[in-house]
Amino acid sequence: MTALGIDLGGTKLSFAVFTQKGNIISKQTLALQNRSGPAVGDLINDEIKKILLVHSHIQSIGIAVPGIYYQEKGTVWAPNIKNWDNYPLLEQMQNAITIPISIDSDRACYIMGESWMGNAKNCGHAIYLAVGTGIGAGILVDGKVLRGAQDIAGAVGWMALQQPFDERYTGIGNFEYYASGEGIVRAARELLLKEKNYHTMLAQARTESLTAQDVFAAYEQKDKVANDVFEICIRFWGMAVANLVSLFNPEKIILGGGVFGPAVQFIPAIKNEAAKWAQPISMRHVSIEHSALGADAGLYGAALLAFQKITIPDTHSSSQNVQ
Amino acid sequence: MTALGIDLGGTKLSFAVFTQKGNIISKQTLALQNRSGPAVGDLINDEIKKILLVHSHIQSIGIAVPGIYYQEKGTVWAPNIKNWDNYPLLEQMQNAITIPISIDSDRACYIMGESWMGNAKNCGHAIYLAVGTGIGAGILVDGKVLRGAQDIAGAVGWMALQQPFDERYTGIGNFEYYASGEGIVRAARELLLKEKNYHTMLAQARTESLTAQDVFAAYEQKDKVANDVFEICIRFWGMAVANLVSLFNPEKIILGGGVFGPAVQFIPAIKNEAAKWAQPISMRHVSIEHSALGADAGLYGAALLAFQKITIPDTHSSSQNVQ
Repeated sequence: MTALGIDLGGTKLSFAVFTQKGNIISKQTLALQNRSGPAVGDLINDEIKKILLVHSHIQSIGIAVPGIYYQEKGTVWAPNIKNWDNYPLLEQMQNAITIPISIDSDRACYIMGESWMGNAKNCGHAIYLAVGTGIGAGILVDGKVLRGAQDIAGAVGWMALQQPFDERYTGIGNFEYYASGEGIVRAARELLLKEKNYHTMLAQARTESLTAQDVFAAYEQKDKVANDVFEICIRFWGMAVANLVSLFNPEKIILGGGVFGPAVQFIPAIKNEAAKWAQPISMRHVSIEHSALGADAGLYGAALLAFQKITIPDTHSSSQNVQ
Repeated sequence: MTALGIDLGGTKLSFAVFTQKGNIISKQTLALQNRSGPAVGDLINDEIKKILLVHSHIQSIGIAVPGIYYQEKGTVWAPNIKNWDNYPLLEQMQNAITIPISIDSDRACYIMGESWMGNAKNCGHAIYLAVGTGIGAGILVDGKVLRGAQDIAGAVGWMALQQPFDERYTGIGNFEYYASGEGIVRAARELLLKEKNYHTMLAQARTESLTAQDVFAAYEQKDKVANDVFEICIRFWGMAVANLVSLFNPEKIILGGGVFGPAVQFIPAIKNEAAKWAQPISMRHVSIEHSALGADAGLYGAALLAFQKITIPDTHSSSQNVQ
């Protein structure tokens, strides 16, 4: 039995054909090239049809979307794809493709992927903290993804971690403002503007084109601004991890997304910060780890979604079904 | 069919006989009188036996304990009862009583009680934020209490809400340090010591015997210290509510415990503070309410535990079974 896992991002689209044991038979990625609205759905359907011609044994399809998936309506809110505010993706795909289709948010797929083939194997209680351009979390409770009343649980980028409230957090959230990929750039810019006398490599990058990668590169060179930026980030990441530990009492927290990545070097410092704040018994039992699947976590999770759709669920209906 | 609900506190013990429709047939409360260790369990068993003589129709017993209940071991950690670090309550009760017995933490029982007969009726996703001497939360996810890997999920008193870390939070947690019943007293004392020139009624209460009730009473009289104390509390309560909204996307958050009580007057201000921080769509959908059951929430939850034990669970195994 094989399934097709699809990971839709804001700018690209990845496909991988999986065996039930979690092996990838083939994989490809293509750019969205500024497509928007129905053209993105058409691209997905066209590519699926091509893949099914070669891999006719595929029995189920799962897809991770970059935003929120509203299960009851079958619609997607994806802030980085134009005209995908309430987009009827399930209907569009079902009209074109006859095999079973499952959709979920990228953050749900990340933790499902890690629980299936990554660093959260056999965990019923685990959290994937995804730090990229933005911040979100996929949260497993008793082996099931926490959805909430409107399918938007896990919006951890909105966590309140520093008083008082500042208008700058509006539309982003306090945690995401400081500790996302964009937050790293923002903090570096703010420090560079405030401390005009900083004589650093980063100062040369005091331009619109500054990226989080630049700040990480400067940190490697012991740049003072970069060091200050990551001190702030580590405090926020540590407090956020602490809050997840105290509230959920999970077995594992996986730090992933584009920023972890290079920020995995900070995991020991993040643990130290978290240990100051968190419920001490929960903190002692939790394991804080990097993602084992990296950029493929969404593909693995999408494939697991697909397999779960065609596997007779047992009474525990956990991700272990298809291992 | 009737069940016996028991609510064990740090200083007293309450019993109520419930019908399956949630009516209380009889109710009584007695003091623990400094009992500790097995003497508390003996008291519980002796009282149950007396009640069963009068109410022989009782078919199941549920008990809420003031701390953590470890489901697998059947043991209780109750910080306010001496020698109840890892106390084998289930075994002691089963040795003395022949009808089915169920145990859970008070915070789990609070939200179960509210979901059965209080302000969270028919909610699958709801949170009871219990603010008393300490702070904890009972969290319903898909109609089931969130337990976590070691049964200690919901330790919200440990939430990190203000930077940087201060040694004073050790052993308590940042949120509980400022916004529990003890936190209210602590904040009032700190302000009175810092601002020696405060000429207020509260200044007269600058003694070891100051209570949260005193601070509430002073607030009613427009006392400046009390006003400052509750400004701090409202900020912390609002941020905590915001974080619960962003992470869990619940239908309702119930504010209860001894402090809510008199602090229900602050619910509109708490909502305003929360709305600044929280994920905006989740915030728009959530309802923030006071507890409908007040001091009886634990008794109702314990009774629901008892009924669930003897009701054939349906596939959703939610609290709606016994309504």
